[in-house]
Amino acid sequence: MSSTVMNDDTLYLGVDGGGTKCRACLVSSSGEVLGTGLAGPANPLHGLTRTLASITEAAEQAAASAGLPQLVLKDVVAGVALAGINLPGMFVTMSEWQHPFAEMHLTTDLHAACLGAHRGGDGAVIVVGTGSCGFVSVKGQSATLGGHGFLLGDMGSGAWMGLEAIKAVLKAEDGLSLPTTLVDQVTDIYGVNGLQIVERMSKASSSEFARLAPSVLAAAAAGDDVARAIVAQGAGYIDDLAKKLLLMAPPRLSMLGGISAPLQKWLSDDVSSKVQPPLEQPEMGAVYFARERHGLSATKALA
Amino acid sequence: MSSTVMNDDTLYLGVDGGGTKCRACLVSSSGEVLGTGLAGPANPLHGLTRTLASITEAAEQAAASAGLPQLVLKDVVAGVALAGINLPGMFVTMSEWQHPFAEMHLTTDLHAACLGAHRGGDGAVIVVGTGSCGFVSVKGQSATLGGHGFLLGDMGSGAWMGLEAIKAVLKAEDGLSLPTTLVDQVTDIYGVNGLQIVERMSKASSSEFARLAPSVLAAAAAGDDVARAIVAQGAGYIDDLAKKLLLMAPPRLSMLGGISAPLQKWLSDDVSSKVQPPLEQPEMGAVYFARERHGLSATKALA
Repeated sequence: MSSTVMNDDTLYLGVDGGGTKCRACLVSSSGEVLGTGLAGPANPLHGLTRTLASITEAAEQAAASAGLPQLVLKDVVAGVALAGINLPGMFVTMSEWQHPFAEMHLTTDLHAACLGAHRGGDGAVIVVGTGSCGFVSVKGQSATLGGHGFLLGDMGSGAWMGLEAIKAVLKAEDGLSLPTTLVDQVTDIYGVNGLQIVERMSKASSSEFARLAPSVLAAAAAGDDVARAIVAQGAGYIDDLAKKLLLMAPPRLSMLGGISAPLQKWLSDDVSSKVQPPLEQPEMGAVYFARERHGLSATKALA
Repeated sequence: MSSTVMNDDTLYLGVDGGGTKCRACLVSSSGEVLGTGLAGPANPLHGLTRTLASITEAAEQAAASAGLPQLVLKDVVAGVALAGINLPGMFVTMSEWQHPFAEMHLTTDLHAACLGAHRGGDGAVIVVGTGSCGFVSVKGQSATLGGHGFLLGDMGSGAWMGLEAIKAVLKAEDGLSLPTTLVDQVTDIYGVNGLQIVERMSKASSSEFARLAPSVLAAAAAGDDVARAIVAQGAGYIDDLAKKLLLMAPPRLSMLGGISAPLQKWLSDDVSSKVQPPLEQPEMGAVYFARERHGLSATKALA
């Protein structure tokens, strides 16, 4: 088994689960990437069974692409990064999984993104894609900010921008806000107008709302006042979040996710001047996490 | 059948369906209330089958309480007022119902509330309960404002206040807003704090969020800045909505719903000075609507 210190043969598997896909990489103890895998959605908040299947599939693909039999998975030390694992109930549920690995170490997708972005070192990340959140880890202290999901938070994210735009369009149709070009954008993208918008969007997913975000950013850049107000409010939140993360003096700060690039020009100079590109992918971050936890448990076994 | 003009024997049934209950009243052609009924939820957006069952049950109760057999329903002219019936798809669905009445005339809960509040005459209403919306009817012209539902609108409503309060508490827990007494209120009401709030509330119903509204109003009255900002924003929207309704010069304006009384002191003097109490209930409004539509169809049949 794998509970001896610095076993040169230990294989590490890093898994990064997300709302649309699940990536895995198999890495040797010296850090060499041996194989990679890619499977479908793995957000346990949106379906546990599918998440477990995607993790397994991505892991098996990684083994196969390394030229190794699936049986090798029972010897690997896996780091599995998932959204929602910071919720106490979800952590317990995932911990009870009869996983196919020698060890499984669970952490948040955000933590893995941070470890990847800073090549296993200290730093901070802000992810602004469909959702939004921030994470910082410095000298063994870490903090997560935001990441409360579509309904309750995720300000500044793509889904949030889309939702605020839909609300603004409905207010504009009632004559209760300034006119906005977003009215036409909504019709173009979703094929509806007026009260049909309510029927079309009342139960739409966060991804559906996020489809509108590029149009909101474009309308804001073109000077639409309603769109500008939405983007400025979202960027204000991300700016506050960044400043809070920077209070812990992380050596690096990266922004990730589909909305992060267009949003950067709306941030204060204080913040945007500190943003640096991520160095590695989240699944490599999950490997760093697994190596650290494996080392800790091995040390504990010796103590 | 009931398509003759001013048939003295015509019985009218008024039905007001809502998210928690469905009220019915059976009224003679001279306007005398013969019987009433009360059944469970009848919001077709939250369940069509249950809605149809509640309407039927309330109608049967009204007949029974009038000392009439259920068979009488096949001769009544019914006005049925429902949330969501302004959505084109829902109107079609409800129109296809093989209802037990001689005639069924469908309108919105809002229209019936307005007709009831002003005893069948012109006027405007603002409903601020779990949701929020406005309606005005003057000289045959009418307009509906708001009423876009929990996710997409309903600003100023109880559910909206609760949602905004939960968002503010989560921001406060991240140190990204001013401290607020709402943090303790959320723990008192829902028994959770920190990230448990996300698990508890991510899929909560609008009614669940509305449970927090009285605490938000109380905290605002006690000077909590975060609560004040929420209530002021909601009241600002309701104020704008009222001013828009008043542009049509309705002879009366009433406010209805559980949040309407505490919210009035947050409205501008212009608006609050014009608010008058409702004269009758929405189910009587549904009767006025049915009488008008029945008269119109009878006239058309003669033309």
